[in-house]
Amino acid sequence: MDRRSFIKNAGIGAGSAVVAGSLAAPAIAQARTDMVIVSTWPRDMPGLGISAQRLAARIGELTEGRINVQYFAAGERVGAFDSFDEVASGNAQAYIGADYYWKGKHPAWGYFTAVPFGLTYTEFDAWIKYGGGQELWDELADQFGLKNFNAGNTGVQMGGWFNKEIETADDLKGLKMRIPGLGGDVMAKLGASPVSLPGGQIYENLVSGAVDATEWVGPWNDYFMKFYEAAKYYYYPGMHEPGSALALGMNKSWFSKLSSIDQMIIEAACNEENAKAMAEANANNGAYLDKLINEHGVVLKKFSDEVYDAFGEASEAVFDETVQHSDLARRTHESFAKARSEIGRWMLLADTGYTEQRNRVLGITV
Amino acid sequence: MDRRSFIKNAGIGAGSAVVAGSLAAPAIAQARTDMVIVSTWPRDMPGLGISAQRLAARIGELTEGRINVQYFAAGERVGAFDSFDEVASGNAQAYIGADYYWKGKHPAWGYFTAVPFGLTYTEFDAWIKYGGGQELWDELADQFGLKNFNAGNTGVQMGGWFNKEIETADDLKGLKMRIPGLGGDVMAKLGASPVSLPGGQIYENLVSGAVDATEWVGPWNDYFMKFYEAAKYYYYPGMHEPGSALALGMNKSWFSKLSSIDQMIIEAACNEENAKAMAEANANNGAYLDKLINEHGVVLKKFSDEVYDAFGEASEAVFDETVQHSDLARRTHESFAKARSEIGRWMLLADTGYTEQRNRVLGITV
Repeated sequence: MDRRSFIKNAGIGAGSAVVAGSLAAPAIAQARTDMVIVSTWPRDMPGLGISAQRLAARIGELTEGRINVQYFAAGERVGAFDSFDEVASGNAQAYIGADYYWKGKHPAWGYFTAVPFGLTYTEFDAWIKYGGGQELWDELADQFGLKNFNAGNTGVQMGGWFNKEIETADDLKGLKMRIPGLGGDVMAKLGASPVSLPGGQIYENLVSGAVDATEWVGPWNDYFMKFYEAAKYYYYPGMHEPGSALALGMNKSWFSKLSSIDQMIIEAACNEENAKAMAEANANNGAYLDKLINEHGVVLKKFSDEVYDAFGEASEAVFDETVQHSDLARRTHESFAKARSEIGRWMLLADTGYTEQRNRVLGITV
Repeated sequence: MDRRSFIKNAGIGAGSAVVAGSLAAPAIAQARTDMVIVSTWPRDMPGLGISAQRLAARIGELTEGRINVQYFAAGERVGAFDSFDEVASGNAQAYIGADYYWKGKHPAWGYFTAVPFGLTYTEFDAWIKYGGGQELWDELADQFGLKNFNAGNTGVQMGGWFNKEIETADDLKGLKMRIPGLGGDVMAKLGASPVSLPGGQIYENLVSGAVDATEWVGPWNDYFMKFYEAAKYYYYPGMHEPGSALALGMNKSWFSKLSSIDQMIIEAACNEENAKAMAEANANNGAYLDKLINEHGVVLKKFSDEVYDAFGEASEAVFDETVQHSDLARRTHESFAKARSEIGRWMLLADTGYTEQRNRVLGITV
């Protein structure tokens, strides 16, 4: 039973008991519901884990407990990569994670986290909210009985941690690299062997030599992962995840039974956490980059134009395959590509063009 | 009376009437309060006006009408520039506007909208939320009995509309230009005569020749202002407002009496509208730039490095004066400058550095 039908049946409504003045207080009867959230992030992981926990708590707070949230980090109820099925099946009501983990179920999921040569945080938000992105995300999620909102972003990711210099695209050949999503497919095109591992398992694989390289997020998140113990070369800018959107994925049947107000509050909480997660990362990345370089001898390197050109060519080849999958994959790609072209051009006049000139004048350099 | 004390006095609380299961519905008694919002934007103005109206409506919706919002556009209750006094005095509960309009009351207000050579949208959000910005904003607002949240952003603004080409800094001398905030002070340093006019009065002044030039926002917002009828040269990137933050400024005494939940809901609604306003502008600016060029013969021009260098030098001179005002002005500037340097450097590795490479590889150009 949703809140509105309960009110209707009880014969009372928000407007029926109004007494004049600010002390007036209508008695509003409200249904309570449990919301079990599973997550792809380890408990208390700086950045991603803390963000997920903050969102879970906020939903409970903003609904005054009408939504009774229980949060389970990766492995506490199900494994990270089992989160999707747990929610699609109705065993849990929601997951917090990165939707490109589900690209094996449908390649279009990749577009709603990040794709190679994709959108930055602000570009993605424009596409999702006002460029048709949310409608396509809804159509995809609906096929699996889900309803998803963007609820976090890591920003432009670093290119990754390598145990050797990457001077040409040839240096990528034979490299075993932890890199999920379509970014992994790009690396495969260039002769590397991509591997998908949850965050909690990367360090051991890198240290043991099971993988030669890994990407994760950015200086702040990566600092706590201690990858520098096994790989000193830290490359930028990452082509594979230029603004990784995190998601709250909900069981659609459960979500549709909530009152419209609780649905709106969840949406607002997701929008808020999206901004907080991005702001927290941007506020911390610079200082943690310095710590990595100064405390741990990390060597900061920029991918050459030649390597970037190879990434670009391989990305187009990956997209050519992706759109073959289905009509929805093609429409998603076309909508994304239109946003990238239009908003990406505007950025040259705006954020990118301005920041270049400002930093040049003020002498702010890498 | 706030909601919690009402509940206490009534002897019922959120936890006291819980019945098992999701159909359980405690009767929660909640105080109602009126929230009169005045605005600095004309009713239904695309972009700014619509954003303000959307936020006002959302606060009412998310609080289920506990906060009874009445919204007055500029001139409907008080004039745009009287909004601040209306709220500080307690005649209204909140305003929506741009806080740099109040720089005559205290120069630090400028930092919480935009300052020349300042922060972009994502940089500003990082500073406000995780770099000490909100705390300084609170300290400033408190001096006037206000509590403010960031509730919108226009993004990097265009440099403005000019009726002649600006090839060197000398071309700015003697120019009468509508440009508020510290950006106007920069123009004055370079020999121009800055004027502050509310949005609704710019067109008539530009057409009559009372001003020679004006900045407003960006292609989407500017399109509807018809400035191209009097000034064909449209310059980028703007140095004066690289990410103009809009504010919900509330009477602090009123805000402090709200329940903590309603306070959080207002904050969440502001965060959400901040993202929506920015996303809407970024999604529309590219297409409207094309319309301006193709339908109205607007000439897109980029400020030269020499002009930008002059802007930079004048900006530093303006800041040197601003920090003399007070300890709070100095601390605000120092916190801002630290964020600009740290986050601005990170952007070279992240959003700016990535977008440059992506657009180069894909051939996305101005």
